[in-house]
Amino acid sequence: MEANAVVVEEQSPCRRRWAAVRETTVKIRRKVAEFPEKIKKVAQDDPRRVVHSFKFGLAITLVSLFYYFDPLYVGFGNSAMWAILTVVVVFEFSVGATLVKGLNRGLATFLAGALGFGVHHLATLPGDIVRPILLGIFVFILATTVSFIRFFPRMKARYDYGLLIFILTFCLISVSGYRDEEVLQMAHKRVSTILIGALAALLVCIFICPVWAGDDLHNLAANNLENLATFLQGFGDEYFTKSSEMESNKASLQGYKSILNSKQVEESWVNSARWEPRHGRFKFRHPWKQYLMVASLTRQCAYRVEALNGCLDSDVQASPETCGKFQETCTEISSESGKAMKELASAIKTMSAPSSHRAHIAKAKDATEKLNSLLKTRLCEDIDVVEILAVATVASLLHDVLACTEKISESVHELATLAHFKNEKDGKQELDKQKQVQKTSNSIDLNHHVITVE
Amino acid sequence: MEANAVVVEEQSPCRRRWAAVRETTVKIRRKVAEFPEKIKKVAQDDPRRVVHSFKFGLAITLVSLFYYFDPLYVGFGNSAMWAILTVVVVFEFSVGATLVKGLNRGLATFLAGALGFGVHHLATLPGDIVRPILLGIFVFILATTVSFIRFFPRMKARYDYGLLIFILTFCLISVSGYRDEEVLQMAHKRVSTILIGALAALLVCIFICPVWAGDDLHNLAANNLENLATFLQGFGDEYFTKSSEMESNKASLQGYKSILNSKQVEESWVNSARWEPRHGRFKFRHPWKQYLMVASLTRQCAYRVEALNGCLDSDVQASPETCGKFQETCTEISSESGKAMKELASAIKTMSAPSSHRAHIAKAKDATEKLNSLLKTRLCEDIDVVEILAVATVASLLHDVLACTEKISESVHELATLAHFKNEKDGKQELDKQKQVQKTSNSIDLNHHVITVE
Repeated sequence: MEANAVVVEEQSPCRRRWAAVRETTVKIRRKVAEFPEKIKKVAQDDPRRVVHSFKFGLAITLVSLFYYFDPLYVGFGNSAMWAILTVVVVFEFSVGATLVKGLNRGLATFLAGALGFGVHHLATLPGDIVRPILLGIFVFILATTVSFIRFFPRMKARYDYGLLIFILTFCLISVSGYRDEEVLQMAHKRVSTILIGALAALLVCIFICPVWAGDDLHNLAANNLENLATFLQGFGDEYFTKSSEMESNKASLQGYKSILNSKQVEESWVNSARWEPRHGRFKFRHPWKQYLMVASLTRQCAYRVEALNGCLDSDVQASPETCGKFQETCTEISSESGKAMKELASAIKTMSAPSSHRAHIAKAKDATEKLNSLLKTRLCEDIDVVEILAVATVASLLHDVLACTEKISESVHELATLAHFKNEKDGKQELDKQKQVQKTSNSIDLNHHVITVE
Repeated sequence: MEANAVVVEEQSPCRRRWAAVRETTVKIRRKVAEFPEKIKKVAQDDPRRVVHSFKFGLAITLVSLFYYFDPLYVGFGNSAMWAILTVVVVFEFSVGATLVKGLNRGLATFLAGALGFGVHHLATLPGDIVRPILLGIFVFILATTVSFIRFFPRMKARYDYGLLIFILTFCLISVSGYRDEEVLQMAHKRVSTILIGALAALLVCIFICPVWAGDDLHNLAANNLENLATFLQGFGDEYFTKSSEMESNKASLQGYKSILNSKQVEESWVNSARWEPRHGRFKFRHPWKQYLMVASLTRQCAYRVEALNGCLDSDVQASPETCGKFQETCTEISSESGKAMKELASAIKTMSAPSSHRAHIAKAKDATEKLNSLLKTRLCEDIDVVEILAVATVASLLHDVLACTEKISESVHELATLAHFKNEKDGKQELDKQKQVQKTSNSIDLNHHVITVE
């Protein structure tokens, strides 16, 4: 880079400029060439994005029909723009988020409209000179108060958008009332077009390939556990036999990293999911808040896993001999915790109460005991302290991870109880039934076969 | 609670309902009673919030003047509402965020307005029957495309709001053009009122007690390091002599927890800070991106500290005797790392190149050596393995923290170089100068004194 700069320095100003232009052109051309790849990636990461874009286009086109058909336009006139505006700002990716925004907007518009109308009426009473002053004072007080309320953490999380719309509508209704005598009619038109816009957005969002925030949240909880499980199941081999194919494997373990910063996303999804009607496997009053509990414990575990991951990169590594001694037990703790985690993940996915994870946790605990006694006997042998430190850290972190796994398992159990996951027994009964049906059908087939032979 | 429920169960339905009403009343009354406390807390947490609210009220009142004064209203008519709308949505807490939103809105409105006008013109060419169909197709294509572009991570982070406004304005201009023949005039009015609104928001935001995102980002970087330092300086005592006054002290160490989830905030502040003009101590092209680097390393360190914090709560604890043996060295590593961190934090705060932190890091390294040899000699003594594990974990995590501290120190050094922090030497020279001036003034005083005596 610097050598390049020197070369440019030596050239004439004209040439230098030309070189800069050429460089920019190359850059732009590269970006343009990369663009289709990027589009493909964004679409492949989540194909529902493409569907969402088409849904959005459809909703906008629908509400813009207001302008094209005379009978519709005559009723609302210029207020038709509020329908378009509403669709643009209310239409979100998931049904829940759209509902939250739509309800926020609807309620805020209605309340602010009513208040604005009242204030307009109040300001008209004293006379024409005082009126603008009174209106100004009201607007100032309300805008100041509401914008302060937006700083309340709970308000910010749930009603931020509604508060914004409240200020907006209040100002528009009370202030435009100063010019337009038919405030009530204007407010009425505006509220109805906003309702129509919100309704159009909602209908398109719900009835054409709906994306449920609840589904996403549910899958995220399972995926996060699965990512942790993948790391834990791979960690043993990676740490103790890394020399061979280190790079290729390590990248596949890093899926858990996304958990570290997923708090905001989870909170907003829970907020959205709570407003969604029952759908698919989720009944009314599904315990969405419990997902936050599971997510928080998962994140706690991810912090430990991050520390374990640090051990993979650490310059202080145990020698192959030391490694060999502890490999089996450490690998077992790690992989059994991973298996328990995977079990919990699949329990969430299939919405059945988890069962066999307890056995894995017990196995991991046994392995911990073994590791402890192993450490005790090996401790006094002539091993470098630094090496012992490295192994002891891994052991202790694995111990922590195991403790986290137990906590996660408890919270998943609670989730299973609250959400009435089907019991393992029920599941087994169902499985038995299915098997029986299969047997029957087999025997029928056989009979049939026999008959055919006959 | 359950006992209560039983009592309620035994009462008549009327009484039960009455009890429920009373309970709700009590709840509401409690919430109302708590409200002033909450207001006080929100205001005390950051007094600039109160100022912001008043600024917001002022900006809204300013643009609503459009409606009150005839000469202003005649020019813009009903388009005046766009000024109010713009202020409501553009006015943000920090100057940078307001600038980003204002520029996004301004640019998007201008581009979309131009495109909308072009499309309107194009659709008029073929004839009146095809026109609404053509317009509908254009709107559909554009809305779909732009809403897909919003999924690109970079676009989402920087231009999300602009893209939204782009769709909105394009639809409004091109579609209302179907009804209103004077599209150009309408577009012109709208663009100018939006510019006026954005300008009003910006001026109030910048010239009345401005809040700079850059300042906040800079202070956050320093505070995060300080929080880590506080934990590390307190950790030794907390871990090894916890029995006495555990509760009181531990809470004061938990400040670092906020670092774990601060990524989004930091990214958005960097995004805002990059648009801010030079202000206070920050020159044009201040290396804001380097703060992300420091923040990311700080977070890495916070994950380790979180694991250390887990050791405080762990059921596996070393006995007082074992603790006593390792207390001194462990406490030294921890507190020296903490001192180095504090040094770095104060270097960022005062914007002077850090210097003495290297000595602290060296001391911590010496202590690590000592700890290792101590572990080596004590390892074979009759200490419970589990205890050794506990101490070894703490030791190893402290080792990791020390490594993180070194990395952070490097990145802070880079920040100091990039941002031209004043050198320790310059600082000393300045200090010397100040001292000399003081001496001179002292001597002058003395002379004066002498003269007086004469």
